Amino acid sequence: MQSKVKIGLLGLGTVGSGVVKTLAGYKNIEIKKIAVKNINKVRNIADLPADIITDQPEIIVNDPEINIVIEVIGGITPAFDLIKTAIQNKKHIVTANKELIAKHGSELFELAKENNIVILYEAAVAGGIPIIMPVKTSLAANKITKVAGILNGTTNYILTKMEDLGADFNSVLKEAQDLGYAEADPSGDVEGYDAAYKIAILASIAFNERIAVSKIYREGIDKITISDIKYANELGYTIKLIALAQFNGQETDVRVHPMLVSKSHPLAHINGVMNAVAIEGFPVGQVMFSGLGAGEFPTASSVAGDVLAIVDELNKTDYPLPMMRCKHKSDAIQQNIENTQNKYYISVNSANQPGVIGELGTICGKNNINLASIIQKGKLDDDSAVIVLLTELAYEKDINTAILEIKQKSTTKNIINVIRVMD
Amino acid sequence: MQSKVKIGLLGLGTVGSGVVKTLAGYKNIEIKKIAVKNINKVRNIADLPADIITDQPEIIVNDPEINIVIEVIGGITPAFDLIKTAIQNKKHIVTANKELIAKHGSELFELAKENNIVILYEAAVAGGIPIIMPVKTSLAANKITKVAGILNGTTNYILTKMEDLGADFNSVLKEAQDLGYAEADPSGDVEGYDAAYKIAILASIAFNERIAVSKIYREGIDKITISDIKYANELGYTIKLIALAQFNGQETDVRVHPMLVSKSHPLAHINGVMNAVAIEGFPVGQVMFSGLGAGEFPTASSVAGDVLAIVDELNKTDYPLPMMRCKHKSDAIQQNIENTQNKYYISVNSANQPGVIGELGTICGKNNINLASIIQKGKLDDDSAVIVLLTELAYEKDINTAILEIKQKSTTKNIINVIRVMD
Repeated sequence: MQSKVKIGLLGLGTVGSGVVKTLAGYKNIEIKKIAVKNINKVRNIADLPADIITDQPEIIVNDPEINIVIEVIGGITPAFDLIKTAIQNKKHIVTANKELIAKHGSELFELAKENNIVILYEAAVAGGIPIIMPVKTSLAANKITKVAGILNGTTNYILTKMEDLGADFNSVLKEAQDLGYAEADPSGDVEGYDAAYKIAILASIAFNERIAVSKIYREGIDKITISDIKYANELGYTIKLIALAQFNGQETDVRVHPMLVSKSHPLAHINGVMNAVAIEGFPVGQVMFSGLGAGEFPTASSVAGDVLAIVDELNKTDYPLPMMRCKHKSDAIQQNIENTQNKYYISVNSANQPGVIGELGTICGKNNINLASIIQKGKLDDDSAVIVLLTELAYEKDINTAILEIKQKSTTKNIINVIRVMD
Repeated sequence: MQSKVKIGLLGLGTVGSGVVKTLAGYKNIEIKKIAVKNINKVRNIADLPADIITDQPEIIVNDPEINIVIEVIGGITPAFDLIKTAIQNKKHIVTANKELIAKHGSELFELAKENNIVILYEAAVAGGIPIIMPVKTSLAANKITKVAGILNGTTNYILTKMEDLGADFNSVLKEAQDLGYAEADPSGDVEGYDAAYKIAILASIAFNERIAVSKIYREGIDKITISDIKYANELGYTIKLIALAQFNGQETDVRVHPMLVSKSHPLAHINGVMNAVAIEGFPVGQVMFSGLGAGEFPTASSVAGDVLAIVDELNKTDYPLPMMRCKHKSDAIQQNIENTQNKYYISVNSANQPGVIGELGTICGKNNINLASIIQKGKLDDDSAVIVLLTELAYEKDINTAILEIKQKSTTKNIINVIRVMD
């Protein structure tokens, strides 16, 4: 008779309890110990033996009987130290911790290699959507040039609601907080940190290069106005927080910011809390993966899938499998956003007088910016005009110079927004 | 120095040449021999050594130096016999042959097990879209209850064009044939055989049950009219050829037929030659995969991904990996379509006289069919009326009885169409 594979679980929040419920059906797997912060909290899990819970996670990472440690605490402290100890004790790791993998992945993967164990992290990106394993296996023969994703459900929910209801950012954020879709301190989601961790992980796998999170350009959604959404709609676009990673074979361009997404692009139809990742490469062309990017059960699906992959292969003499190993070759050369080329949507609040549109066009032309269109979109209460410009591909640094010049014009009241565009 | 892995390629058509071009970049992989039908045909591949081509495929499957045989001939004869010989000679198999895997998979997987080799077939379903590997690995912890796919690019192209242009089936089919999107004999695509092979393969992996292709209910798209598409649009639906597989834990329900797909369902936005697969299960919820389902390079992406997975793991003592093995437990109990429940769209051409709608409603009620709506959609040139019924969930056998009764009514000119509905 085969003995059971013994699991230690760090964390019993939303994802942790989904993992316990999902793994309960497997006779060859036993969750031996679960570390929690508050040992007295009542848990919504049936048949949980009282002695399985501990508030001393060190017991788990040092238990010689435990084969696999699942980490669903999140954050850096104490997860980082606990995982390092577990690896040194030759335990395989399954984690949903995007921040830890994004910031300290290279150190952890080195340590894993030394200790001949694997770290799997399908749940760290896009919740239940299989994306890490497909990129590493089925798509392995591709030169991937672009990864574009909607990787944060909270911000996508907010933008979808703003568009559907015509409500402004702050009121929708409040509603999302009341419903539990947004946290009391929403900055991790709203300012794009969460999406930045996830795109760092995806880019590193897609391009086989280590990505520094600190060099990822990041802009949140708090400045998006109802008028921007309305004008974008009229032009055939919807506004999404896009996590983008591009690779030209030499330099990577990794960033998170709102974009006008053409309604003909598959990402434009990903609404509410849904997540999606579109991957472009050769020979595959474009493929897209979508589904629920967070939540107790979708995330547990990915954690449990990783656990089963390890259990299937345990006791192999040649373990770990090459396909599960980290293959990053080198540190990426990460482009500065100033040197990237994009199409831009620019909305300007200007005095309503003749010649303004011509002057805006002249400033753009002087700065090597070709315009696709320039439209007066209406008048505000004070009789000033809103003018919307859509550019062709232009360098970010040229756009910045042009924006400065537009600001200095006496007819300009203010620049409402500058948003990049994805066709 | 590591010696090269030697590949034998059966077939050098569209997919075969994509495979050659894709694998050309790998220094550890050598395509040793390629079997073709016509040895004198000029090939559009650079640097192909003349002596690499043969018209005797038996040489390849019997060559002791060859580690992996890639089969991209398609069809049953001679692919089936060639692959059996290759397996008996301990060669790993990578194939894009959906018909062969769907019809003879169980025999081939048994033979593979006896000979300790693997058969990979990511390219057999949905071209470049990773779907076989994700279902086997990342989604392994799920009880999958439903797989719904747009798995045939030709029919999806035809239906999209009919909707966009308001053109009828025959004229769009002719245009698709002229463009090379449809074959001279289009029956394999149009009548749903191609999609049936693919859903048989997906269902067998998703449910771990062997599926008999002969028991799959199948209906093509040739009876779909422009009016059906127009009425469906007005009701908030689009018409797609859907390959569907459902499993209640005991019986499977696998079939291919046109469906009205609600515009709120992600499959409704998959247009033209694109393919997509939506998977529902617990704990993951719903995830969807989409991309190009055919063509030289997308299909080569999947073939080459499978080759790299095998190459990565070759020379392992414990090969083949459990995750690459066939895990089918038993033959599925496949439901007869008569016993399935569906929602239905029924369009009836009837005399334009009072009481007809009431009579149709009465026939439905008598046969346990609840109606969601019944709408007179307009008059034809002969002053007869078109009436469209949308039902709630009803048994197919009850629908068939009701349809017979409606046909027998003196006011009924004909039943235009009966199409199942997916919300």
